[in-house]
Parts: sequence; structure tokens; C-alpha cells
Amino acid sequence: MSKPRRFAPAAVQSFIATGFVRVGLPEDDAQIIAALMTDADMQGSDGHGIIRMLPYITRIEAGGVNKRPNIRVVSERVATAHIDGDNGMGHLVMKRAAEIAIAKAKIAGMAWVGSVHSNHAGPASLYARMALPEGMLGLYFAVGNANHLPPWGGLDMLLSTNPIAVAIPAGEEPPIVLDMATTVTAYGKVKAKAQRGEQMPEGWMIDREGNPLTDPKRAAEGLLLPLGGAQAGYKGYGLALVIGILAGTLNGAAMGKAVIDFNADAVTPTNTGQAMAVIDPSAFGDPQVFRDNVDTLIRELRGSSRLPGVARILMPGEQSFDKRAESLRQGVPVAPALCTVLDALADRLGIPRLV
Amino acid sequence: MSKPRRFAPAAVQSFIATGFVRVGLPEDDAQIIAALMTDADMQGSDGHGIIRMLPYITRIEAGGVNKRPNIRVVSERVATAHIDGDNGMGHLVMKRAAEIAIAKAKIAGMAWVGSVHSNHAGPASLYARMALPEGMLGLYFAVGNANHLPPWGGLDMLLSTNPIAVAIPAGEEPPIVLDMATTVTAYGKVKAKAQRGEQMPEGWMIDREGNPLTDPKRAAEGLLLPLGGAQAGYKGYGLALVIGILAGTLNGAAMGKAVIDFNADAVTPTNTGQAMAVIDPSAFGDPQVFRDNVDTLIRELRGSSRLPGVARILMPGEQSFDKRAESLRQGVPVAPALCTVLDALADRLGIPRLV
Repeated sequence: MSKPRRFAPAAVQSFIATGFVRVGLPEDDAQIIAALMTDADMQGSDGHGIIRMLPYITRIEAGGVNKRPNIRVVSERVATAHIDGDNGMGHLVMKRAAEIAIAKAKIAGMAWVGSVHSNHAGPASLYARMALPEGMLGLYFAVGNANHLPPWGGLDMLLSTNPIAVAIPAGEEPPIVLDMATTVTAYGKVKAKAQRGEQMPEGWMIDREGNPLTDPKRAAEGLLLPLGGAQAGYKGYGLALVIGILAGTLNGAAMGKAVIDFNADAVTPTNTGQAMAVIDPSAFGDPQVFRDNVDTLIRELRGSSRLPGVARILMPGEQSFDKRAESLRQGVPVAPALCTVLDALADRLGIPRLV
Repeated sequence: MSKPRRFAPAAVQSFIATGFVRVGLPEDDAQIIAALMTDADMQGSDGHGIIRMLPYITRIEAGGVNKRPNIRVVSERVATAHIDGDNGMGHLVMKRAAEIAIAKAKIAGMAWVGSVHSNHAGPASLYARMALPEGMLGLYFAVGNANHLPPWGGLDMLLSTNPIAVAIPAGEEPPIVLDMATTVTAYGKVKAKAQRGEQMPEGWMIDREGNPLTDPKRAAEGLLLPLGGAQAGYKGYGLALVIGILAGTLNGAAMGKAVIDFNADAVTPTNTGQAMAVIDPSAFGDPQVFRDNVDTLIRELRGSSRLPGVARILMPGEQSFDKRAESLRQGVPVAPALCTVLDALADRLGIPRLV
């Protein structure tokens, strides 16, 4: 792969926002979405950043997303809210969900907000992390927007890579931010292998006979393996299923056969479901003691003796944290091939190219 | 292995309870613990049932558990409670936690209860399932009571197999009950392999050079692999860590180096932490519609076409459900070798043997 080009974060955000405004989104909404997409690229979640600008705009132009949604709470209790995204961009829906969950957790001690009629919202960690500046813990669950996973032992792709993210504040140490799909690998990594002409390792996918599938160009014939792989994949299947129910079925959103493949269909509303939970640590003791104890734990883990060849013990989210710092210093990396796509998009929309 | 003997559930519960009363537990508490341990055996969680009677009693006799705990809420908000188990048996603490979480969820929409100074409480699913008769969803997280898992890339065993359980009510179908350790396999299964003189498959454990370890008699030299194994074990490591923080660190309970190996030390209080969350589906829509949609999803998954050689698509918890029904019909299975241990225990305590 050729070396990525680097752009100032503000330039990336402005470029994305200008594109969304051009296809009809309100300025404020466009800025919110663009900031979150830029943040995704900055932390290394490059499958969820500016690379999504073209597919999102394609969907907006096709009428598959509501450009002026009335995102609203349809029912609530002290610690919960059920919000209807009105088929708006998922970033708007889940930012609102996180804000509501944080406000409610301050009062109730913890809160859980679920969405219906939402859409793809980018990396799970973006929303879980929103609890951190408040000193709170964030949990995020989502139904993925394309089914690539069968039930354990099955062939029909009825489940997605339904991700979970958990963000935990520390004291002096960077926060712990877990963000994981419940498959061995995300489908985007399979597509990346195909683009680079590389083979996949055994354990990522199987074919319909149950044999290892390593040619990513044959991915459409195969099935992703759930986390745990051939040996313990029933656990990953179970996680994908319960996360999907918590994020989707519980909220009246799509799960199973009802999930729309948003790569193949730009028109039908996805009815995506997500859930955001926030926990206030002060409901369980002194929050400073909690943060100190998280620091102690991080240092114990990091100080572990290591397997031969291992240079460093990493915390979940540590690499993303480092990448964000690097992006702030050096700019947001964008692959040259993607720059070409974005230039063509800019020209078509009649907006200034990303520079 | 020789065929298990079968005992009436009431006889098993009565035998266990009588033993606990004999070593000083109040009758009511003994019955609660005995009922949960019997239920564990009935559902096939035989590593957490009557097999634990001897180690629990050993610990009680050694003074490692408080026989007359003052289990109490030390702080609470509308949707949360922090409970101090006063070093009582974990079953008592977490049954109380589940009851509080259910009562709070009825009002707040959802609730989260965390424990400090608790103890081993048996299978995670027992507590998650307590939400089901109320038509609610239950989630349970625990810090395991012995560290067998290093951080990813590390050698020092600083983490346990920290389990998660999620129980989801259905309509006409049995509920979905996921109960999983965050390692490829539980340490109890390694011990069982050793007892039976069998080898472990590759992927369960590695040695301190990072090579596969398949001889369970050498387990003490090795490390459990986190869920995801050699390929994606960083995900299982991340899950074990965040579950441990949610269940332990958040509550001021033991995590990392502070975790006591309760197999090796019967005296030091374990300061076990657990967490129980309950969600009322009526906070997110019509609960009957939710249960119907869970049924639909179960039927879609079960109806999937199957890989060659697969007879049946299973839901998480379905095998436990079947085993419970079998135990009700045929009695609770107890291995003959364990019966011998229990007979000796009964004789020592001066209580009637299990018949």
C-alpha cells in the first residue's frame, strides 16, 4: 500500500460537512456527523471515517436516510429512554442518546437509552467514549448493518458482527476503551485483504462445507466465524445474538432477517437499533478511588512479564489513543486511492476538494 | 467415566442445606444456597453445584466466610445500589442484588446493583435468570475467584475467567440464556480432563513460551487462552478486563493482584465483586411485542440451513433448559466419585448421607 496522505483534522471535518450540506443536511447536523467521522479516522477506525462519506451520501441522495429527522424520545423513565431516530443519520441519533444517558445517569446512578429507526453510526467506541469527560463509564451495543454471520452450526447469514464498546475512565492513565466486533474479524478487514490481493489467515472465514476459506475474493461464498472460531465460536455467536437483541429487538429495531444490507440497498430504511448505557461511578463509591484503582490495575497489567517476542502489554484502546495523538500532530491519514474517490465526489458535488 | 447416580432435587437441596446448617449457617440462608447449588447441577453447571459443597464448607470452617453476614445496601440511587456482602456466601449476596435490581427496574426502567465483600456465587446464569419470571432481562458480571489468565502477550496471571451472563425472556419459546467465561475454556474443564486422563485440544492453553499446551497434568505451568485464542485473543482479554472492572473495581472489590485464589487459600476474605443489571422491556415498547419478536428471531435462527453434520441449531441456554427438564424427570446427576466424597463429608459432619 502506498503511504497515506495527511490532512488537518479541521480540513477533514470541514470537507465532510460541506459535502453533507450540499446534499441537503442542516449545517449543524452535518458538522456533528463530520466531527465524529473525522474522530473515527483520527483514532484509526478508518473503516468508519471519511471512507463512508461516499456511501452515506449515496444513501442520502437515494432517499434512504431522512435529511431532516425529528429525533425524539418516545418513552422514558427515570433511568431509561427509548428514542426514535426518524431514519436520521445514526451519528445524530446516538450522540443524542449518549447525552440523554449521561444526564439521566447523573440523577439515577446509571441509565440505558435505546434507539429505533436509527442508522449506521460509525465506530461503537465514539459513543461509549462520550461518557468519559463526565468521569462516567459508557457502554454501547449495536446491530450491524449487514448480516455476515450464521447461527452456530448454520449456513444462513442471519446475524451481523454486532459490536460492543466499553469506555472506562482512569486517573493519570489513558482511559480503557474496548471496541470489538463479535466475529473473529470484521467484514471490512476481509474486503481490505481482497483489495490488497492478500490471503486471509485460517480462522477468519469458512466455506459452506465448513472448510477454512482463505481467499478473500471468494468471501461472498463464505461465512465469517464468530469470536472463538472453530473451537469456541458458540460463545461469539451467543454474544452477537444477545447484543443484537439488546440493541435491536428490545427497541423494536431490525434483527435477523429484517436487517437491511446497507451495502446492497441504499433506499430501504435500515431501522437500525443501538443502545447506550452510562454508569456514574460515584453511585458505587468515591469516584477518585475508583480512578486510582483503575490506574493501579492498568499498571499491574502493563508490568506483567511477557511472552517471548512481545514488546509491550497493551490496554484496550491504547493503540487508538496513540493514533489520535499522532493524527493531532501529523494530520489525519487518508489512503491515496481514497483521496481519488473523494476528489471525484467533490467535483461531482461542486465543492472544494480536500486539501 | 462411570454413569452418574441420580437423586431427587429435594433430596439434594436438603442434603446440602443440612451440611451448611451443621457448620453454622442459619437455616434460611442454608436453604437459599442449597437451592441455587441444586439448580446449578440440574441445568448441567456441575462445576458449580454440589461439587462445591466440600470446598465451601472447608472455607466456612476455616473462618474464611462470615456465617452470619449483615448484607446491606451501603449507597443507592433510583437505578443503582451498592451492596456490601459482609463476606457472606455469594449466593446470598447476589440473590439479594437480583431482588433489588428487579424492584428498582420496575420503577426506573432498568437498574444496576454491584457488590463488594461478596464471595463465589456459582454459575452466572442463575442470577441473570432471576429477571425472567418478572418478564425482564437480566445481565450478570463477576470477577472469577482465581487468576488463570494473563493480559494479552503477558505471562503473569492477573485476570480470571470473568464471566458474563445475559437472560432474555421469550414468548412461547424457552428464554435465551447466555452464560460464558471469557476464556476459550473454563479452568474446571482443564481439571476434568486431567481427572479423566485425557489430553486437551490445542487452543485451550499455552505454555510460558507461547506454545500449545495439551497435557492437562501440566496445567499449572501453562496459561489459559482468552476467548478468541491465538488469533483474536485480545478480544477475550479485553472482555475479561472490562467485565472485571464493572464487577470488581467499580465496586471497590478485588481485581488483578488483589484477587485471592480461593482454591489455595480458605481463610483470607476474597472480597469478590459482582454486578447484576435488570432491564424492564416495557420501558422500550410493548413487552408482549418484544417477546413475540424474540420468538420470531429464535425460529429464524433455528430454521437456518445447516453445515454438514450439524443436527440442530441451538440457542444459548437451550442445552441447560433441556438438562433441567431431564433432572426434574430423572433426578439430579451426581458422579459416583463425588458421591464417595459427599458420603465421607456427611459422616464427618454427622449428617445423613445423600440418598
